[in-house]
Amino acid sequence: MRSVCDRVAGDRMTMAAPDVTNAFAPVRRLFAEYLDAEPAYSAQLAVFHHGEAVVELAGGPALDTESLTGVYSVSKGAAALVIASLLDRGALDLDRRVATYWPEFAARGKDDVTVGDLLSHRAGLAALSPGTFAFEEFLERSELGAARLAAQAPLWVPGSAFGYHALTIGILMEELVRRTTGRTLQEEYEETIRGPRDADFYLGMPEDLDGRYVPLAPPVLTAEQEREVAGRPPQDALAETVFSNVDARDDLTDHGISSNNPRVRRAGPAAIGGVGSARGLARLYADALPGAARPIASPEVFRAMAIQRSWGHDRVLDVTNSFGAVFLLPQPRMPYASLGAFGHDGAAGALAFADPATGISFGYIPWPRQHPGGADHRSVALARLARTCAIEAERAA
Amino acid sequence: MRSVCDRVAGDRMTMAAPDVTNAFAPVRRLFAEYLDAEPAYSAQLAVFHHGEAVVELAGGPALDTESLTGVYSVSKGAAALVIASLLDRGALDLDRRVATYWPEFAARGKDDVTVGDLLSHRAGLAALSPGTFAFEEFLERSELGAARLAAQAPLWVPGSAFGYHALTIGILMEELVRRTTGRTLQEEYEETIRGPRDADFYLGMPEDLDGRYVPLAPPVLTAEQEREVAGRPPQDALAETVFSNVDARDDLTDHGISSNNPRVRRAGPAAIGGVGSARGLARLYADALPGAARPIASPEVFRAMAIQRSWGHDRVLDVTNSFGAVFLLPQPRMPYASLGAFGHDGAAGALAFADPATGISFGYIPWPRQHPGGADHRSVALARLARTCAIEAERAA
Amino acid sequence: MRSVCDRVAGDRMTMAAPDVTNAFAPVRRLFAEYLDAEPAYSAQLAVFHHGEAVVELAGGPALDTESLTGVYSVSKGAAALVIASLLDRGALDLDRRVATYWPEFAARGKDDVTVGDLLSHRAGLAALSPGTFAFEEFLERSELGAARLAAQAPLWVPGSAFGYHALTIGILMEELVRRTTGRTLQEEYEETIRGPRDADFYLGMPEDLDGRYVPLAPPVLTAEQEREVAGRPPQDALAETVFSNVDARDDLTDHGISSNNPRVRRAGPAAIGGVGSARGLARLYADALPGAARPIASPEVFRAMAIQRSWGHDRVLDVTNSFGAVFLLPQPRMPYASLGAFGHDGAAGALAFADPATGISFGYIPWPRQHPGGADHRSVALARLARTCAIEAERAA
Repeated sequence: MRSVCDRVAGDRMTMAAPDVTNAFAPVRRLFAEYLDAEPAYSAQLAVFHHGEAVVELAGGPALDTESLTGVYSVSKGAAALVIASLLDRGALDLDRRVATYWPEFAARGKDDVTVGDLLSHRAGLAALSPGTFAFEEFLERSELGAARLAAQAPLWVPGSAFGYHALTIGILMEELVRRTTGRTLQEEYEETIRGPRDADFYLGMPEDLDGRYVPLAPPVLTAEQEREVAGRPPQDALAETVFSNVDARDDLTDHGISSNNPRVRRAGPAAIGGVGSARGLARLYADALPGAARPIASPEVFRAMAIQRSWGHDRVLDVTNSFGAVFLLPQPRMPYASLGAFGHDGAAGALAFADPATGISFGYIPWPRQHPGGADHRSVALARLARTCAIEAERAA
Repeated sequence: MRSVCDRVAGDRMTMAAPDVTNAFAPVRRLFAEYLDAEPAYSAQLAVFHHGEAVVELAGGPALDTESLTGVYSVSKGAAALVIASLLDRGALDLDRRVATYWPEFAARGKDDVTVGDLLSHRAGLAALSPGTFAFEEFLERSELGAARLAAQAPLWVPGSAFGYHALTIGILMEELVRRTTGRTLQEEYEETIRGPRDADFYLGMPEDLDGRYVPLAPPVLTAEQEREVAGRPPQDALAETVFSNVDARDDLTDHGISSNNPRVRRAGPAAIGGVGSARGLARLYADALPGAARPIASPEVFRAMAIQRSWGHDRVLDVTNSFGAVFLLPQPRMPYASLGAFGHDGAAGALAFADPATGISFGYIPWPRQHPGGADHRSVALARLARTCAIEAERAA
Repeated sequence: MRSVCDRVAGDRMTMAAPDVTNAFAPVRRLFAEYLDAEPAYSAQLAVFHHGEAVVELAGGPALDTESLTGVYSVSKGAAALVIASLLDRGALDLDRRVATYWPEFAARGKDDVTVGDLLSHRAGLAALSPGTFAFEEFLERSELGAARLAAQAPLWVPGSAFGYHALTIGILMEELVRRTTGRTLQEEYEETIRGPRDADFYLGMPEDLDGRYVPLAPPVLTAEQEREVAGRPPQDALAETVFSNVDARDDLTDHGISSNNPRVRRAGPAAIGGVGSARGLARLYADALPGAARPIASPEVFRAMAIQRSWGHDRVLDVTNSFGAVFLLPQPRMPYASLGAFGHDGAAGALAFADPATGISFGYIPWPRQHPGGADHRSVALARLARTCAIEAERAA
């Protein structure tokens, strides 16, 4: 049997200051326990405290600290940083009507939908229906996809419900950026968010990094999990429509819509196309914290984005959920951080966030894809332990 | 042991075209399996595809294809077809205030309630309280019942909740029809909806059809179901009030408020008084589909009625629910059809709907009453299988 | 083994009239069963019918009918009686904006919050965040706590959710009373509510009653309950913040924020500081019923306060909940009385309410604190049985 340390293959504990790092040693121990418990499991974990890396670990057969991989909806949080910078510049306002920036949006009963409503999954545009998006309408030419959504009647009366716009929120964010800056969300992200920080997290990954890309793999299910999946009630048509809303049949690469498809990696659609490392995510979110050296936006902007806008029974995911503007907030189902924290999880089990109350920023990426989707129990446990360590470190200081 | 075919007693497979019908053969097999599995169980099933009957079956000891029986709240869907025709004619508008058509309704904080709110169980008029409706206020003189509801304060602040108006939504629909046409909902239904289509589904069944009427019977519970009922927590007073809100003690027939009472069958109250066959229901809904030969209303009207207006935790039924205008929509708890479909289930287990995405209309009536109430698992499984068959038939064509 | 009667130690069955009391004998029997089943359990129970005491019992090792003890959030119901009297006098209006009475409240997006919204846990002020209240800001100088809440951004966009303002609703009620009367809620309570009725329930208990005070004790958990607590998922940060929002470290008595702390008993904070007996609670609520000899407010006022304003998934407590203005309403999770009843439970298991449909007012206090918190199953069963007895007594009369 290999020792725990053997398992933490890509182990590289970056130390900001020895005493701070020691304060986070329990996080390292828990991470090692997880790796030890399941040979097929790999993961990256990065925690920054007030902008300094205090934990950076990777382990398992598939990942080291330099690996880049797909994180699905964690991408939404990175795209939300672009939205934050637009709010900060005054180019966008959460309380204004979407139609102010995008007149065509007013069609068919959507006139009063605000930017805040749209970004918190309330507008009833969780899917194109009837119809599906052509692949390019989701990738290189999402302005065409956006135009179709703008022309559509909402799936519910705005204000009466919310439901995860799993794919469309990316198209909608992309259009808001286009309308307010004349540039793509991906250009804005690269030039104002990622580039200046040299953060290892891409919306549109350059081809020359393909050598570091670790392909997503299907989840490995236990026998019990397989029985649970088999016994599950049939899926409601709304969720079915939401998650099969992009038609990739015209794609010659025939790789589907995950970031395993090079065309997806290049385009980096805001909804699910981000590729990077846990360190890259923690670094980005570090600049979303008050007191950041190179702030992405003011603390007021992030506070406004972290106010809960949607709470209750998510019409699409059929679970309890809590959203601010774009960000998935800590909540009873997923109590990953303090009140006021903001971030996003992803279908493969990844999680990334900033927690102003503790000064922590956090990135975690497991491999292969976990079952069920969304932030897995490990990510929440690691995040909570990092929070406890940070609180104790502050108390001791 | 009798063979499956023996059990499909009233079997009459109507064939629109042999190849289409073959496409729906799996539905017939599943229906036969259900009949075979439970000797006491009877049912009618009818599926139309683009207005053509492709499945019409009946089986079990109690029902043949010509039987007429009560379907409780499935009646609401038939009454909603009258509402659709009023919307189509412009006599009614979902976005206007109820008080526009019915000035007395504005009393006690209900001024701003729209027709759309009222018809999606949002107005807080789920029950008269305090008090109960006299039997005639629910049947022959529902304008008196409506006047009492109009004068009442809502049970919740409008906009803060919704809850199934099990009996009162019928009274409220009936008053809307009276105010906008000067006639009763039942007259409108007979003359503009049922009559022209000779559909076997009545809101006010003529006496001369009594010979075809199969009385409703109480559910047959398994020992496990009986234990479940006995162990159930006590019922909340709101639900208790809603379901005992009509006082039938002045009825000389002493048959209660089900359609087993001839007085209920004759009056055909929109909430629960409909009587008919699965074929009648499927035929009605066929003319609610785009491209119908004799459309009840335009596709736009049905689209507007099928937009979700209420979602979440139903205050009366204490389950998750989803409503459009009158129609119960497909939803995670009851994923009976495609996004955009609309219909209604009933307390005895019946289900009827139209699905514009597949061109299917569907009617299903089990006997005796199923436990628990509402569309039973068989109805959803049959409906989903019919949908799959329709999608495959289109693909093959 | 002691007999049932021995266990009903402080038994004092007050009889309004022998026949009425006999009608409630089943309540007495059930109460005795509970005492007999669990030696450590003590409780007080009082039921009034149309203002007459028909049941008054106490039993178990810790309580007799003269004991006074803490009831946590049941206090909110007593404080709500002050609100009722202000509504009755026209000093306060549920439909007006809070900022009408309290201009500073309008800050940071709270301008449109009405008094009704605020009092039904909808304003998003469930906790101060970041920060905590100093002990005096919660007790003797809650105007300072109120000022901090007024200056704060809401935790959710008002209108998008509700969540139990466990501690802050007391501060907010206290400020509303101060702004509209110039006096403290506790002064108003003592002079207009408690004093004139000589009711044994205090918001600010005089020192000379300390001899009757029975200290709260921690819950006694069964092994199964302890396993359940240990296996519970970690608490969400919002709930954690709500329930640890008052910092009592500056309190020299070092007794925390329960009424075991003499400073809390003296101040009687509206959220959790009430001290009294079951009889005191039932007496108070008797004057909230229509036809009361000395009505606290008109039946219209109580009807308006008992209309449901919040329903669904409570963001703080993570359970389904139903609130009127301040009052916790009967609901599926806690079906304690008729539609239209209003009251409040408390963390230790106590429950008190008025039920206009039956004419009952009810007070129940168990000891030690029950697990889990909130009205325990006994309180609901006793309340339902009292209701049945009252309905049968009316029918027999």
